[in-house]
Amino acid sequence: MINLVILGSTGSIGTQTLEVARENREEINILAISCNRNIEKLYSQIKEFTPKYAVVYSKTKYLELKNTVKLTKMSTEILHGMEGLNYISKISDADTVVSSLVGNIGLVPTVTAIKEGKRIALANKEVLVTSGELIMKLAEEYNSEIIPVDSEHSAIFQCLRGNNKKSIDKIILTASGGPFNKFTKNEIIDLKANKALKHPNWSMGKKISIDSATLMNKGLEVIEAKWLFDVELNQIDVVVHPESIVHSLVQYKDSSVIAQMGLPDMKLPIQYALFYPNRMKNDYPRLNLAEISKLTFEKPDLVKFPCLNLAFESLRIGGTMTTVLNAANEVLVDLYLKDKIKFYDIPLFIESVLEKHKPILNPTIDDILGVDKEIRKKVFNEVLKNIRK
Amino acid sequence: MINLVILGSTGSIGTQTLEVARENREEINILAISCNRNIEKLYSQIKEFTPKYAVVYSKTKYLELKNTVKLTKMSTEILHGMEGLNYISKISDADTVVSSLVGNIGLVPTVTAIKEGKRIALANKEVLVTSGELIMKLAEEYNSEIIPVDSEHSAIFQCLRGNNKKSIDKIILTASGGPFNKFTKNEIIDLKANKALKHPNWSMGKKISIDSATLMNKGLEVIEAKWLFDVELNQIDVVVHPESIVHSLVQYKDSSVIAQMGLPDMKLPIQYALFYPNRMKNDYPRLNLAEISKLTFEKPDLVKFPCLNLAFESLRIGGTMTTVLNAANEVLVDLYLKDKIKFYDIPLFIESVLEKHKPILNPTIDDILGVDKEIRKKVFNEVLKNIRK
Repeated sequence: MINLVILGSTGSIGTQTLEVARENREEINILAISCNRNIEKLYSQIKEFTPKYAVVYSKTKYLELKNTVKLTKMSTEILHGMEGLNYISKISDADTVVSSLVGNIGLVPTVTAIKEGKRIALANKEVLVTSGELIMKLAEEYNSEIIPVDSEHSAIFQCLRGNNKKSIDKIILTASGGPFNKFTKNEIIDLKANKALKHPNWSMGKKISIDSATLMNKGLEVIEAKWLFDVELNQIDVVVHPESIVHSLVQYKDSSVIAQMGLPDMKLPIQYALFYPNRMKNDYPRLNLAEISKLTFEKPDLVKFPCLNLAFESLRIGGTMTTVLNAANEVLVDLYLKDKIKFYDIPLFIESVLEKHKPILNPTIDDILGVDKEIRKKVFNEVLKNIRK
Repeated sequence: MINLVILGSTGSIGTQTLEVARENREEINILAISCNRNIEKLYSQIKEFTPKYAVVYSKTKYLELKNTVKLTKMSTEILHGMEGLNYISKISDADTVVSSLVGNIGLVPTVTAIKEGKRIALANKEVLVTSGELIMKLAEEYNSEIIPVDSEHSAIFQCLRGNNKKSIDKIILTASGGPFNKFTKNEIIDLKANKALKHPNWSMGKKISIDSATLMNKGLEVIEAKWLFDVELNQIDVVVHPESIVHSLVQYKDSSVIAQMGLPDMKLPIQYALFYPNRMKNDYPRLNLAEISKLTFEKPDLVKFPCLNLAFESLRIGGTMTTVLNAANEVLVDLYLKDKIKFYDIPLFIESVLEKHKPILNPTIDDILGVDKEIRKKVFNEVLKNIRK
């Protein structure tokens, strides 16, 4: 029996994690769940899974849910805020903590879980993007296994099974190319966010859908891969593969390439991370290559999608640069989603803020959180200034 | 240092094994080599690698080479016949025996090597096709590792690294489709063997080139896979993949598919088998998916290529049926190569001989060799009778 804590259970990954738990009731016990503000969904999850704890990040929503739960005499204890998230990250009964919060907010509770030696099923990209070096060091120190939930990193993790990391030649991340891949740069200039929200292959959250359209998603994954698999930047390649069947590949020093494939379904990497090293039998739809008939691959277009290069550049410099990249991107994606800026404003503003930033090398968690806060404010104000002009 | 014996060093696999040895002189010592009749090639191999022993299968050619070697005062001892092959298969200094003879002749010396607990780098398909059950039992009993050299089986072997065999859902063998894949059945009817000898992706021997054209090659590989990986027949699928980039795949019970890819080059599986579990760095050309741009897959056409089904059928019945399939096929391919029969005579005669055969279940090596001899004679005579009519 796996005792599970889910940091962020109402988002896309959290919901699918609970689907996996539902399919494996004999194997998975839900100990704690959490949401930001979506207490309706959290409430229905509490009713179904009767966790010991549920955390609501928002104070007002917390009070609302606490009242409801009190009236229904449910046994689940309702906690709130960062304190609540930290509390459920270190429950002694918990085996695995699913880190699936969106954005930098997951950093501190994930560190808390690592320091308790929990297995981390990591979906929260920003944890490694901003603090990868630190996180991997802590994980080693506290003997905490970090198992990626992202389909690409899960693929690489699977391709590395039974192999020595030292024999890696290259890690090859596949990218769907996103919803704008077939458009020209001129066509993309005026495309609004709603166009990007319908991803061709994956059902995902809003933020990640825009990141997929800009290819920043792949950039963030490059940074994650660097830390997760301890490779050099020039050992990471990106190839566009619109069908999203090959989830990523590892090329070894003997020239052999191992790939992980499957129909696009996030439940597989989630299940894999929870049950690793066991491969749990399931009835997810099977890949039929003859039916799919064709897999295509192309070079990523770095002119059309400059965010990918910005990610490589920020990682090359290192330190807090990737925190800047990530913070600026989060603010800008939010503004793009609200139709306040245009598509190419995202890389433009990121580039400008990266250029101005003096990176702190070997940053602490506090450094990272400080830079994160500062950059968000800076980018927001700069955009506001530009809009007013 | 790996001390290597090569059973069949002048054929396609043997020659490429020596290329790998040449590329890894610090790591590989050639202890013994052998040929059937090609003493010119063997002589040049003796000069380059100065093995302790060299075996010539043919008595007359043996005498010829022995004379030459005597005159040049080389230190290599020249042996001959099955006795010679058996002798080099049990040299105590040898670590690995490359079993790369063509046809059923490799069976006895391979068994000899297994009984000495050697690692077998297995390229000689017929060993597993005719005697798979027996061979795998012996390998377990004598603690001999059997590592496949065929690109497809090496791919599967690599895809299984670090995984439990019990979690295999399916083994998916890829087939190039062979040189006749694009032709219709009507066009194929009159195609001569010389048309088949130019394989689109792999440089191979004559026999295997015809087997690739009939898809019997894939049928034999299905039989091999069954024994090597201890799966049921319904756990083996074949998919046609004309680019020969994906060398084969394993689908696991959790729906995840692991594939091994690379440019078509037999040196990789050879090197892999010799150095396993190490992945030896080399400078073989690297796969570039963006450059290749497209991988295609289709169902095998069992009407156009009936040999594949015959292989499945013979394996379903078991016992000596696969020996019959293999022996009949060898004779018929030879006759096709000599333009004595037509393409579809191969499956036709095989089917007829399979139908008439009363299989011996759980055969001994002697049973197998007996049936092999009997079937060869029978098929040959039957074809002759037909030609005379």
